Amino acid sequence: MISVVILGAGNVAMHLFKAFDKAENIMVNQWFNRTIKPIDSYKNRVNITDDLTALKEADIYILAVSDDAVSKLSSKLLIENRLVVHTSGSVSLHDLDKKHRRGVFYPLQTFSKEADIDFLNVPICLEAIDKNDLKTLKLLAEEIGSISYKVNTEQRKSLHLAAVFANNFTNQLYRIAHEITESKGAEFNILKPLILETAKKIQTMSPYMAQTGPAKRNDKKTIKKHLKLLEDNHYKEIYELLTTSIQRTHGRKKL
Amino acid sequence: MISVVILGAGNVAMHLFKAFDKAENIMVNQWFNRTIKPIDSYKNRVNITDDLTALKEADIYILAVSDDAVSKLSSKLLIENRLVVHTSGSVSLHDLDKKHRRGVFYPLQTFSKEADIDFLNVPICLEAIDKNDLKTLKLLAEEIGSISYKVNTEQRKSLHLAAVFANNFTNQLYRIAHEITESKGAEFNILKPLILETAKKIQTMSPYMAQTGPAKRNDKKTIKKHLKLLEDNHYKEIYELLTTSIQRTHGRKKL
Repeated sequence: MISVVILGAGNVAMHLFKAFDKAENIMVNQWFNRTIKPIDSYKNRVNITDDLTALKEADIYILAVSDDAVSKLSSKLLIENRLVVHTSGSVSLHDLDKKHRRGVFYPLQTFSKEADIDFLNVPICLEAIDKNDLKTLKLLAEEIGSISYKVNTEQRKSLHLAAVFANNFTNQLYRIAHEITESKGAEFNILKPLILETAKKIQTMSPYMAQTGPAKRNDKKTIKKHLKLLEDNHYKEIYELLTTSIQRTHGRKKL
Repeated sequence: MISVVILGAGNVAMHLFKAFDKAENIMVNQWFNRTIKPIDSYKNRVNITDDLTALKEADIYILAVSDDAVSKLSSKLLIENRLVVHTSGSVSLHDLDKKHRRGVFYPLQTFSKEADIDFLNVPICLEAIDKNDLKTLKLLAEEIGSISYKVNTEQRKSLHLAAVFANNFTNQLYRIAHEITESKGAEFNILKPLILETAKKIQTMSPYMAQTGPAKRNDKKTIKKHLKLLEDNHYKEIYELLTTSIQRTHGRKKL
């Protein structure tokens, strides 16, 4: 049995609580948040508190708070020599107060409040200074069904950056595709199977091999047509930059 | 029973042949290509030819050829007053010779030679000058399991353009994410569930609602960290432009 205390009440904290609560071999000893309201509805399922001086004992303290709050909160904790981890992709392990046995438990996935998440689809990036702590974190990930990866700080930060490209920026391209179609009264729905297939394709094929389209073919006629169709200069700029990027990757253009 | 003649031997032609061949109520009367070699292995399953003067009769002639070849090939056909369609997203219906009853049968999906495709996941955009021809094309799409959409030329062209954003450009972002992770020895595999989830999310939620991350939050500290991590100026430029784009969409910045 692994016992944990969760600190924070954002999306990651919420989803972790639900996963821990369901897991057979994990006990959530307490859930702390600086205000009770966001976690009040859980009070029948777990001990809740907004009082840092009343923290219970546990094997792992999980700081699922905003990046800016990690350092301050960790130094405010009255415990010492306990395994304390944060869940951030970009905060250094050394931002945690050194009175703790420090670690990182970074779930690399997009969490939304509404949608339930299956932790089978949430890879967890682990860091710890102590080898035994790393084992404990690995076990914690396993118990909720996640695959875990031992990474170093530099790797975790690069994954966090890459995730912005693969998730936020990709989603913005979907948004632009949405605007382009709707502006002509065409249904965005028509694009949804293509979007899904594009993401599925690279599960088994490298993005390099999966590339197709006018930029890769250097089909100047189509590229010209597209730029003419784009009324918005900002979208034109994105089209040109990503076309250049594809051509650079596929040897059509030197930058 | 709908009878068709396929012209061309690219990915779209190949996948259409396989789907037509499997469909109960479609008969492929002939498969034409200007050279026999690419279709030679199908000669036991369908009549093949490289001779335009030997074209058989059929309800629909499908020009699954490159954009540039559509106009020329359609005027070379010795048939007249027959339903002739192309499969392109960006070629005008009027590029087909006007001696034909003209139409468009544009499957909006990414096709690769290797992967089999289920036409259930291939929306087909239809255009036709004649109402009965439109019905025939709709039936053809239904027979291979596709959902079809009646679109006008402007809508089809905007879908084709939007598909470049949603497929080619998105795939290039995957490629960049791949490069960023590998350059630090981190596994690209860790990002694959996130990529799939990002595409799944917008099947039921608008891309606008699905957006998260530092650009949307206007988290300047993280944006600055990311720009510092990006060693490649070209990637920095893409990061900045797409961050600006997200902030423009979500009211953080006026352009």
